Amino acid sequence: MQSKTVKQLLTEDIVTPDVEVKGWVRTFRANRFIALNDGSTLNNIQCVVDFEHFDEATLKRITTGAAIHVKGELVESQGKGQNVEIQAQELIILGDSDPEKYPIQPKKHSFEFLRENAHLRTRTNTFSAVMRLRSALSFAIHKYFNDNGFYYMHSPIITGSDAEGAGEMFQVTSLDLKNPPKDDSGNIDYSEDFFGKETNLTVSGQLEAETYAMSLGKVYTFGPTFRAENSNTSRHLAEFWMIEPEVAFMDLAGNMDLAEDFMKSVIQYILDNNREDLEFLDKRLKDEDKTKPQAERSSMGLIEKLNFVTDNHFKRVSYTEAIDILRNSKPNKKKKFKYLIDDWGCDLQSEHERFLVEKHFKCPVILFDYPANIKAFYMRLNDDGKTVRAMDILFPGIGEIVGGAQREERLEVLKQKMAILDIPEEELWWYLDLRKYGTAVHSGFGLGFERLVMFATGMSNIRDVIPFPRTPQNAEF
Amino acid sequence: MQSKTVKQLLTEDIVTPDVEVKGWVRTFRANRFIALNDGSTLNNIQCVVDFEHFDEATLKRITTGAAIHVKGELVESQGKGQNVEIQAQELIILGDSDPEKYPIQPKKHSFEFLRENAHLRTRTNTFSAVMRLRSALSFAIHKYFNDNGFYYMHSPIITGSDAEGAGEMFQVTSLDLKNPPKDDSGNIDYSEDFFGKETNLTVSGQLEAETYAMSLGKVYTFGPTFRAENSNTSRHLAEFWMIEPEVAFMDLAGNMDLAEDFMKSVIQYILDNNREDLEFLDKRLKDEDKTKPQAERSSMGLIEKLNFVTDNHFKRVSYTEAIDILRNSKPNKKKKFKYLIDDWGCDLQSEHERFLVEKHFKCPVILFDYPANIKAFYMRLNDDGKTVRAMDILFPGIGEIVGGAQREERLEVLKQKMAILDIPEEELWWYLDLRKYGTAVHSGFGLGFERLVMFATGMSNIRDVIPFPRTPQNAEF
Repeated sequence: MQSKTVKQLLTEDIVTPDVEVKGWVRTFRANRFIALNDGSTLNNIQCVVDFEHFDEATLKRITTGAAIHVKGELVESQGKGQNVEIQAQELIILGDSDPEKYPIQPKKHSFEFLRENAHLRTRTNTFSAVMRLRSALSFAIHKYFNDNGFYYMHSPIITGSDAEGAGEMFQVTSLDLKNPPKDDSGNIDYSEDFFGKETNLTVSGQLEAETYAMSLGKVYTFGPTFRAENSNTSRHLAEFWMIEPEVAFMDLAGNMDLAEDFMKSVIQYILDNNREDLEFLDKRLKDEDKTKPQAERSSMGLIEKLNFVTDNHFKRVSYTEAIDILRNSKPNKKKKFKYLIDDWGCDLQSEHERFLVEKHFKCPVILFDYPANIKAFYMRLNDDGKTVRAMDILFPGIGEIVGGAQREERLEVLKQKMAILDIPEEELWWYLDLRKYGTAVHSGFGLGFERLVMFATGMSNIRDVIPFPRTPQNAEF
Repeated sequence: MQSKTVKQLLTEDIVTPDVEVKGWVRTFRANRFIALNDGSTLNNIQCVVDFEHFDEATLKRITTGAAIHVKGELVESQGKGQNVEIQAQELIILGDSDPEKYPIQPKKHSFEFLRENAHLRTRTNTFSAVMRLRSALSFAIHKYFNDNGFYYMHSPIITGSDAEGAGEMFQVTSLDLKNPPKDDSGNIDYSEDFFGKETNLTVSGQLEAETYAMSLGKVYTFGPTFRAENSNTSRHLAEFWMIEPEVAFMDLAGNMDLAEDFMKSVIQYILDNNREDLEFLDKRLKDEDKTKPQAERSSMGLIEKLNFVTDNHFKRVSYTEAIDILRNSKPNKKKKFKYLIDDWGCDLQSEHERFLVEKHFKCPVILFDYPANIKAFYMRLNDDGKTVRAMDILFPGIGEIVGGAQREERLEVLKQKMAILDIPEEELWWYLDLRKYGTAVHSGFGLGFERLVMFATGMSNIRDVIPFPRTPQNAEF
């Protein structure tokens, strides 16, 4: 007979009463009730053991973390909390788990402790729910773009260009660091490196995605990106995944429409498909909040926050308008903001973004037309000469989640901006080519995947939403 | 009015005759027929220009590569080759393309030339078809796993472990190469590097995927992997994408079932969804073959080869059986093989794999139970003590396309194998933990994504199936 997954047993109509299942023991109560989990769902299947019928040696090996194979009869459950359970007829121990040593005991572990055991932490309810949601969000993203005529494009990870300036880069090399080749002036001779030049890990696939948008029309990337920034915070990773759609013939208004529809669609997907995991995490967050002082508690529950995104129109507000609102806001006047809003031109902080979303507009907000000098060189300059066609989407609890722009499509304007920033044209000859041969209005945006997973799971540390986080002084596993 | 894509115009029922479309000019014949493409499909839409109604200056700017906006009436086509065409009423030039300089002229370019213009090569039929198929295959892969209860897992790209030994690795560092910190014995002091130790780019996500399989049950990775091998061939890349499913409680037979079903399913997906691109590439391959001497021509057409996979059962043959067949084969006896098969224990070459598939069995073949010493340390040792539960899937024209195994789940056996290969247990403490706490039979396989794209497109150089190939001495774009 073929084994069923726990999910199948709990949700499908099983015709025959005889079933088999394999999984890991979560708990074994009263020498009688095994809670068995195989990762297919948050829920365990209860296996009821008639202990008189099993030898004691076997029963002793049914410990938390042990892998077992259960054969028995699927019956309606007598107890509360489940519809069906298995009356165990045969128990086969596949792999023991020494209860003295197994780190994942059925008790509350700190997230710090579980990070040190990242290879086992998905055996807990919280992390299995988070990682199932991470997977579901990934699929929702691919599905959205596929359904809407986008092509998935793998932008390169190793790059010979460091022109984008989005952050500090990691170097990639095959040179012997102890004894690297040097030229006559004592500089490293990169002609002897693997690629014949200095190479780094990419910080963004956008510029390459633009090349594909300007031929295939609608494309997106979804791949790893890197920052060598020594930021040891709960919001920074050295390695993280990013989604970057890019569309030819689309202006900033179209970009906002796309981003709003996209964000609503992927969040609706998990509301439709991952209800149990979301409800578990919603409750976890509420329980955690109860232990906090009132001021630090979340203003919304997890599912409430997701519905806030799917149910509301995203309010579109210019940067200039937003500065006016913030300047005249209560927290600014009462000096409650950590960074007070004074003049037009400053960059917004998370506290300002959250004020706009949570207090002022009470809906997701898209800010647009930012000052040119706080945004990247490739964003399209407006006719006012001082703002660019940038946009940021602001969400409750988190602030900026999406950043995008209409791209500068005019060759001469782009060249001028590069010259001011000392970006050599030879570095980006291929990027300039897009403006020489059939240039057109085009736009796109970037979404940090882990920020989306944090938002969708209510986890507050970014290290807890990626399988094996890479941070300063840490590349374990 | 909203612009339509070329694909919409050619395939949807358009009610109103008035349409708008934006795209790039492929050709402009007789001052009358514009072939316009926007990447949404291989096909162009024909825009018919009544040249008496347009000023000459505009018509002169309609050159190959120019981006234009056409407004007009969608009508049944008078000419051959298309059902509908646009009677242009308005022509707006969005971006010019100087015919003296634009590299992608309407003529046959060599693939070498197009590689140097990788940012523009998707404006050709061949490369747009290849990249649309690459995207469709990616989606088919995610869809297959999602439909079958797998969770997508992002394995880390930067790794502190170099234990897998699958190939030479690139080093990742934030140290200043000109002046790296050294310890008293003159070695690089990696405690000062970003991660506090030596780190590399991953060669495989399998070991990490195993940790997730042993908690979530069924998982897969789909991400970039790297080899710092100085192989300048048409089959090697320094950066390529890999798919690695891993399943708990699944043995080698289940692994074969999964791999066969998976490969058939993703190929069926493109046969169902990408017919035009496949037919174009099928014809391209046939045309190319005509220019070759008989002996070098493909034995099968492209679509024929894809059907060969979907329509045939994959024959399962042990390595030992295969060696017998090969040893007694005509090409071996007549010394036609470059590498003659003599003794049990040797690794097979592409010529042997192709003989088994194309000449002997005439179907895809799964070889299994390979000699332990030509396979990786983590593969499960058979009771004979000399073979392991490995499997390779062999396809026509290409040889090995999938490699997988049942993993060694026994702690003591795994430790012995690691000791023989001098892999320190401290390196892989977390991998060994999986065998300490609830170990179980589990299996998985790896598929090099670019090899699949080559197979599915008929392209013979791996540099032509990835947007921006990374190879020795080349990291342009």
